[in-house]
Amino acid sequence: MQDRFIYADNAATTKVSKSVLEAMLPVLAEQYGNPSSAHKMGREASRLILAAAQQAASALGCKPNEIYFTSGGTESDNWALRSAARLGSEQGKRHIVTTMIEHHAVLKCCGELEKQGFEVTYLRPDAQGRITAGQVEAALREDSCLVSVMAANNEVGTIQPVAEIGALCRSRGVLFHTDAVQAVGSIPIDTAAMNVDMLSLSGHKIHAPKGVGALYIRSGVALPPFMLGGEQQRGRRAGTENTAGIVGLGQALADVTSDIGGRSARLAKLRDRLISGLMEIPSARLNGHPSERLCGNVNISLDGVDGESLLLMLDAAGICASSGAACASGSLEPSHVLTAMGLNGQLARGSLRLTLGDDTTEDDVQYIIEKVAAAAARIGGL
Amino acid sequence: MQDRFIYADNAATTKVSKSVLEAMLPVLAEQYGNPSSAHKMGREASRLILAAAQQAASALGCKPNEIYFTSGGTESDNWALRSAARLGSEQGKRHIVTTMIEHHAVLKCCGELEKQGFEVTYLRPDAQGRITAGQVEAALREDSCLVSVMAANNEVGTIQPVAEIGALCRSRGVLFHTDAVQAVGSIPIDTAAMNVDMLSLSGHKIHAPKGVGALYIRSGVALPPFMLGGEQQRGRRAGTENTAGIVGLGQALADVTSDIGGRSARLAKLRDRLISGLMEIPSARLNGHPSERLCGNVNISLDGVDGESLLLMLDAAGICASSGAACASGSLEPSHVLTAMGLNGQLARGSLRLTLGDDTTEDDVQYIIEKVAAAAARIGGL
Repeated sequence: MQDRFIYADNAATTKVSKSVLEAMLPVLAEQYGNPSSAHKMGREASRLILAAAQQAASALGCKPNEIYFTSGGTESDNWALRSAARLGSEQGKRHIVTTMIEHHAVLKCCGELEKQGFEVTYLRPDAQGRITAGQVEAALREDSCLVSVMAANNEVGTIQPVAEIGALCRSRGVLFHTDAVQAVGSIPIDTAAMNVDMLSLSGHKIHAPKGVGALYIRSGVALPPFMLGGEQQRGRRAGTENTAGIVGLGQALADVTSDIGGRSARLAKLRDRLISGLMEIPSARLNGHPSERLCGNVNISLDGVDGESLLLMLDAAGICASSGAACASGSLEPSHVLTAMGLNGQLARGSLRLTLGDDTTEDDVQYIIEKVAAAAARIGGL
Repeated sequence: MQDRFIYADNAATTKVSKSVLEAMLPVLAEQYGNPSSAHKMGREASRLILAAAQQAASALGCKPNEIYFTSGGTESDNWALRSAARLGSEQGKRHIVTTMIEHHAVLKCCGELEKQGFEVTYLRPDAQGRITAGQVEAALREDSCLVSVMAANNEVGTIQPVAEIGALCRSRGVLFHTDAVQAVGSIPIDTAAMNVDMLSLSGHKIHAPKGVGALYIRSGVALPPFMLGGEQQRGRRAGTENTAGIVGLGQALADVTSDIGGRSARLAKLRDRLISGLMEIPSARLNGHPSERLCGNVNISLDGVDGESLLLMLDAAGICASSGAACASGSLEPSHVLTAMGLNGQLARGSLRLTLGDDTTEDDVQYIIEKVAAAAARIGGL
């Protein structure tokens, strides 16, 4: 049993899939042209990027020329927030509505904008991590230029009513951005039906490699560029395109959306079984929404159990899991998400996130339940 | 002869080398942990990044914790320029010195900063593309916060006296940034001896993949972050690290600096042979410096010859070359570099850049000379 290895940290990052790797390898090895070059090698690279934009557009219900490839979710969020704020500022609108449970890539941009004189309303979620369109409506002002609400939370997996919020923003003429880094591949995304103006996504959460992502920008939204330089990507995102990564991202988007119903149903079943098993541990409570929840996400707090010790014991048992988000690891602060949901510092520090993926089996789930129960008993009993 | 293929556009981008690909493949396929994760998979990824930073530090004569991985040269330039300007602004210093022949990633940031109230002095190079430390000295003011001069030009290959400029800036207490995207791998780089505070480099110019680069930031320089979000890279560059790309960049930096003298001597010999051959074409003139020139760079203008037609004919003959920089292709403007050097619009539009690489042979050089001469005769004779 000691050699058993279970990767249950798919919200932190995922393994590059076989089909993505196969799509990328010839690009890495042979199709190395610069997409801006006019010669044969350049035209070939340029075609690869267009094909990936078409795959992305099919996955998101938009047009290929509404897709801009970036270095990842963080760049996409920085671009959307900072450029939308600039656009607003030019119209004398300097108020932003977001939530207390966004990823730090959104929250830190908001903090920066506050220093520049913007006002930001941070909506507090309910105890299960939900924000309502009513809350957004109540927060909107005449000078609101942007609403940014994530499609699903990275820590607790709670899914937000993005389509309702989008319809509201559209009717009020306010730009709407959603960080869909965790949602893409887990729930169907239709940018048109959701009325989003900008949507961030990341490759490495859906079996593409790290270092590539995209920002959807609705046609007609005059979002200024964030990265300045060459004329790449219709003059809106400078920098030689990460061709191999982009090809991988296109393939990954095609893969995860091809049978999203089947994949998510399988994962939700495993998730619910894992939750039931873990809930038998006396000190356990579930964090996040019981049903409006990403198919692969389990997040629990164990009263009286130190999260770090628990993770170490699981790691020793071959289980990769996390306490909160990977991006915040190393920080001793309790999770800002769990704190916003009303958990006290002790429970917020003692959380355990297990995020399942396509490789996860029923056996794995059983093994995780046993190991978490054993570790909780050991630590709790100290 | 029709099937012959010669890639002579290595300044636009390079082929990923075998050793880089071999270093990257296990990372892409198996070592997929998030470097911020505390578990086994995360620690392994974190170690890979540290090892790459050590390779980069050896290549640049600095410490591993002075290396920050980015998505490429453009991001590095944007970070350096925009954050150094912000740092200057906080001290009441809003004057920047740069050159007319920088890459657009630098020039467009300068343009943006001018809109924000900064003053920028754009130094004009001599007819061979050189800037002197004396010019920089004459431009410096009490309120100068930043000097940004590229180590070598991407179009004409002219090498700048960066060490002299660095010593001057250090003595005057002004931050010095150099865009070394084209220089790294062609000339020895020693950040300490060059007295640079910030240095941009890109992976895909030195046989690493596209989508990865680095910014060297001298220890002690309090450059604010550009990309905001998670606590990656000591809290200074948010976003999950592009692990495979970073491993590739580390390997590429180790490779290109391991025998830089031998490699550059071989390339310089091929370059000079190509220049001599091309100079026999009656309408040809060399652009750039005859000796202070990157080892792989050839840039000529052919009087009375349209650059685009020439490129098409070379492409048909299996030769990948460019007219000016790839990043500016699609633009009908004459090269800003050649124009700054005093060429008239016709000559600036009719330029041909051939950039050689490790795969280039003497036979290739001979073939290029023949095909350029034939094309020039055909177009010039129309």
